Amino acid sequence: MNLKRFLPLLEWLPSYTRSDFAADGMAGLIVAIMLVPQGMAYALLAGLPAEVGLYASIVPLIFYGLLGSSRALAVGPVAIVSLMVASTLGELAESGSAHYLAGAVMLAFLSGAILLGMGFARVGFLVNFLSHPVISGFSSAAALIIGFSQLKHLLGFDIPRSHLITETIAHALSHISQLNITTFVIAGLSLLILLAFKSRVAGALQNAGVAKGVADAIAKAGPLVAVASMTIAVWIFGLNTNAGVKIVADIPSGLPPLSLPVFDMELIRDVLPAATLISVVGFLESISVAKSLASKRRQKIDADQELIALGAANIGASLTGGYPVTGGFSRSLVNFTAGAVTPFASIITAVLIALTVVLFTPLLYFLPKATLAAIIVVAVANLIDVKTLKDAWAYDKADAASLIATFFAVLTLGIELGIIAGAGLSIALYLWRTSRPHMAVVGRVGETEHYRNVLRHEVQTDPRVLAIRVDESLYFANTAYLEDAVLARIADQPEIEHMVLIMSAVNFIDASALETLEELIERLRDSGVTLHLAEVKGPVMDRLEKIHFLDHLTPGQVFLSIHGAMEALSPGICGAPRVA
Amino acid sequence: MNLKRFLPLLEWLPSYTRSDFAADGMAGLIVAIMLVPQGMAYALLAGLPAEVGLYASIVPLIFYGLLGSSRALAVGPVAIVSLMVASTLGELAESGSAHYLAGAVMLAFLSGAILLGMGFARVGFLVNFLSHPVISGFSSAAALIIGFSQLKHLLGFDIPRSHLITETIAHALSHISQLNITTFVIAGLSLLILLAFKSRVAGALQNAGVAKGVADAIAKAGPLVAVASMTIAVWIFGLNTNAGVKIVADIPSGLPPLSLPVFDMELIRDVLPAATLISVVGFLESISVAKSLASKRRQKIDADQELIALGAANIGASLTGGYPVTGGFSRSLVNFTAGAVTPFASIITAVLIALTVVLFTPLLYFLPKATLAAIIVVAVANLIDVKTLKDAWAYDKADAASLIATFFAVLTLGIELGIIAGAGLSIALYLWRTSRPHMAVVGRVGETEHYRNVLRHEVQTDPRVLAIRVDESLYFANTAYLEDAVLARIADQPEIEHMVLIMSAVNFIDASALETLEELIERLRDSGVTLHLAEVKGPVMDRLEKIHFLDHLTPGQVFLSIHGAMEALSPGICGAPRVA
Repeated sequence: MNLKRFLPLLEWLPSYTRSDFAADGMAGLIVAIMLVPQGMAYALLAGLPAEVGLYASIVPLIFYGLLGSSRALAVGPVAIVSLMVASTLGELAESGSAHYLAGAVMLAFLSGAILLGMGFARVGFLVNFLSHPVISGFSSAAALIIGFSQLKHLLGFDIPRSHLITETIAHALSHISQLNITTFVIAGLSLLILLAFKSRVAGALQNAGVAKGVADAIAKAGPLVAVASMTIAVWIFGLNTNAGVKIVADIPSGLPPLSLPVFDMELIRDVLPAATLISVVGFLESISVAKSLASKRRQKIDADQELIALGAANIGASLTGGYPVTGGFSRSLVNFTAGAVTPFASIITAVLIALTVVLFTPLLYFLPKATLAAIIVVAVANLIDVKTLKDAWAYDKADAASLIATFFAVLTLGIELGIIAGAGLSIALYLWRTSRPHMAVVGRVGETEHYRNVLRHEVQTDPRVLAIRVDESLYFANTAYLEDAVLARIADQPEIEHMVLIMSAVNFIDASALETLEELIERLRDSGVTLHLAEVKGPVMDRLEKIHFLDHLTPGQVFLSIHGAMEALSPGICGAPRVA
Repeated sequence: MNLKRFLPLLEWLPSYTRSDFAADGMAGLIVAIMLVPQGMAYALLAGLPAEVGLYASIVPLIFYGLLGSSRALAVGPVAIVSLMVASTLGELAESGSAHYLAGAVMLAFLSGAILLGMGFARVGFLVNFLSHPVISGFSSAAALIIGFSQLKHLLGFDIPRSHLITETIAHALSHISQLNITTFVIAGLSLLILLAFKSRVAGALQNAGVAKGVADAIAKAGPLVAVASMTIAVWIFGLNTNAGVKIVADIPSGLPPLSLPVFDMELIRDVLPAATLISVVGFLESISVAKSLASKRRQKIDADQELIALGAANIGASLTGGYPVTGGFSRSLVNFTAGAVTPFASIITAVLIALTVVLFTPLLYFLPKATLAAIIVVAVANLIDVKTLKDAWAYDKADAASLIATFFAVLTLGIELGIIAGAGLSIALYLWRTSRPHMAVVGRVGETEHYRNVLRHEVQTDPRVLAIRVDESLYFANTAYLEDAVLARIADQPEIEHMVLIMSAVNFIDASALETLEELIERLRDSGVTLHLAEVKGPVMDRLEKIHFLDHLTPGQVFLSIHGAMEALSPGICGAPRVA
């Protein structure tokens, strides 16, 4: 049982059938076709040689396949993580240098170690501390940064790397005279092909009588078609030499060499913070897609097991000349819709990519970088998320504000600081909300036992008995606010003799709040008011009894229900008094 | 009215009587007698010349008297702030150097500016984000550090300043041969006198038939007696020359010169973080004592006005060669019990201290530093707070842990990092608590309309209807936890058809939680379970209606009460069904 937790493959392998294999095989093939150009493109985005993206798409997929709890997650290089790698290493070394490469490997190794550590420490829940609006704002901004980072490949002239889009655009416009028309045309055609396959092809084929499954499969081949056609065009017309079109050129063929990362302490210190962020962000993207796919087939995702699997995948990447990987959103969706039923699909993908590296790299020699850039642009376009902003704005301006703030924080402060600011912001927003609790004075609804907010309902109240419902747990940040609010009401209403705090929404009282509560009892007593409690929750009551709080409270009492309290304290609105 | 907010003196000045003056005069005198040696002692603790402590006890008191909203707060140098000043400047300059002095003045100016800024921005509530256990752990640790920092004066040989008590003790023991017996004896006698006056004198005098008021007043003179007797002893026997007893020696007589702080940008950058912490810690000490004294006489404290008054006081200190000041605990208590009825008492104290500086500084020439150190040790002994730890431990181990952690953080990381760690810790603890909400499955109590936790009460439930009460507001950090918990229960109980979430303890649902809730509805629907809500709070319902959440919910319903829900869904336990 417990072994099954750590080796999810024991769940599916024993009952694995030939038809499962057929399904996984098809899905694995489609993902491989998609992953070869994507992997190379993301490697370039990360400032690494194209082959690194392919190396990162072999061993990591196998490790994840053996350990992952998701049946459909497709692991490999992804856009945002690649961008984070670029922005980290960009400050340490010259892109393409040995030190840069060593940094990428070290990032993979460290984030692998961090993910494993989090998994064994079972602290997967920590990632929940990034709110959805913050994640949405972060991805939209990251997508923009990624998109514009490809401008240099699309226009065919060099633009210095910068996380400030404005700088990138300004530089591009001021140097537009250097535009390489051929490159620009290739980029345009690539975009056309990709978009056409994305939106039109499946439908067109079906109208032409092709079976839906096949049509969908073909539609996934967009990147392959773009890559093939553009590569051939460059090769035939020798555009790389005649028109200065930048190409991928030599990719060493053969499997990546097994090698340990270089343990350079200074390097480790430099990249450790980034590695932590990469782990968190990567895990977030991965777990969210894994969960949404699993729920479609009623499968369970074990967050801590996912941490272990992704950790192993990244360690695997670092041992085979790769760079940080995680579960990609679009890729996993393709894997899922293409019919992957078990992680074996990932293993098949890995094998096919290994074959590509061994046999087909010469075919990729003339592949224009502009086409890879086009693939990136189309991929990240999906990340720009306006819907969440609209929804948040309609539902809660504060949440919408935190989304917008994160968005601009990422665009101005850069990707790392941006997401840290976002996380801090969402926590601050929550503390702010809970630091000034909503309090409602309640009264009796007709002759019922229901008591509701006097401002919202037609209710009867007793000027001598003030019943306040506190809509928040009591803790250090809101305890002073509560005290001031209560004392203010007492000051306004001198005729009050009894004050009942309704605790139905108080889920805990921390030590600071307890202290304040005891002070409050004293102060109310000084001003001739007795404090009572009603509807105290079981867990809260247990604690209060443990420290004999009730001795402080007397003559005040604790009532099971607010009606019980009113019956005892307010003959006025509940008939003759009786002891509760 | 509004003017009265900003000039509280308009509250009391118009109705000021001669008897008020008599009371304030007595209190002012007693505080002055206490403040002269204390001010000098704390200045030495801060690594500053003794007179700086006196300068900081003149203008700041007058400014606070004019602006403060507390009637009894006694402003001036205090132990913890002095320690923070020492630990900040100790890293920047040689104690006693001009740069060190300039730093102290700049700290006063900056924290004054920060306090004013917070006051006008009306963000006084921010200080609530330090929990009581954290503050208690912080003060206890600070008190220890302060006490041991005086060891060198008590033993009469130099011990290098260190925030590590262990280092201080080790150094003291290894150099104990350098002990200056005379100094040690003076220190011992001073301690005896101070403790005797503190605990015995008042009682003894009353037994001897002295009126209580007078006896108490005399008891306050402990520091004066210690200072006078020891000074005379040193002077008569020439202990400073014959026995190497360290004395205060020359104190420039005359009022402090008016002077602007030196605006050295580098210096400002160096001390700004410390200035912020000093403002927060100082304000915390001040506001807590002001509140507790005010409540004894039913007076109100306006936190934002206090920020402004303390800000002005510190600016005042910086313009008259002083250093950061705040409301002291013991001193304010003395002021209060000595009968101060208005802030005019502070102004009288200030005048008396000004006179001292002009006329009596020569009398302080032979004052031994050992006596001042004894005064500090006795003063900070009160700060060591074991009771709060005991209470917290009995009530909530987590709070107790945060107290202990802060205590050791301050002792090991030093005063600034220590309190930052403490604040972070208390917030983390709160987030941790709310990130895994308590959820209770409830059932009907007999034939009543009450529904209680099935684990705590004898109740009837319906296997087809699961009613869960969520005891926490729903926000990004606990939403995944809720989802997992709910889906797990559904998986365990296949016969469930309806699931009712009881929202009586849910005070808000943020955008992330809303998203999860909508996903949850879908997933439950997929597994044939209908989700309903019950007892949704007014403010929460308003938001949900605004975005037509109910359309997502249908066929699920929102019930006013859990009983209404059970009547509609569970004929089994509520008789014939009817539409709610």
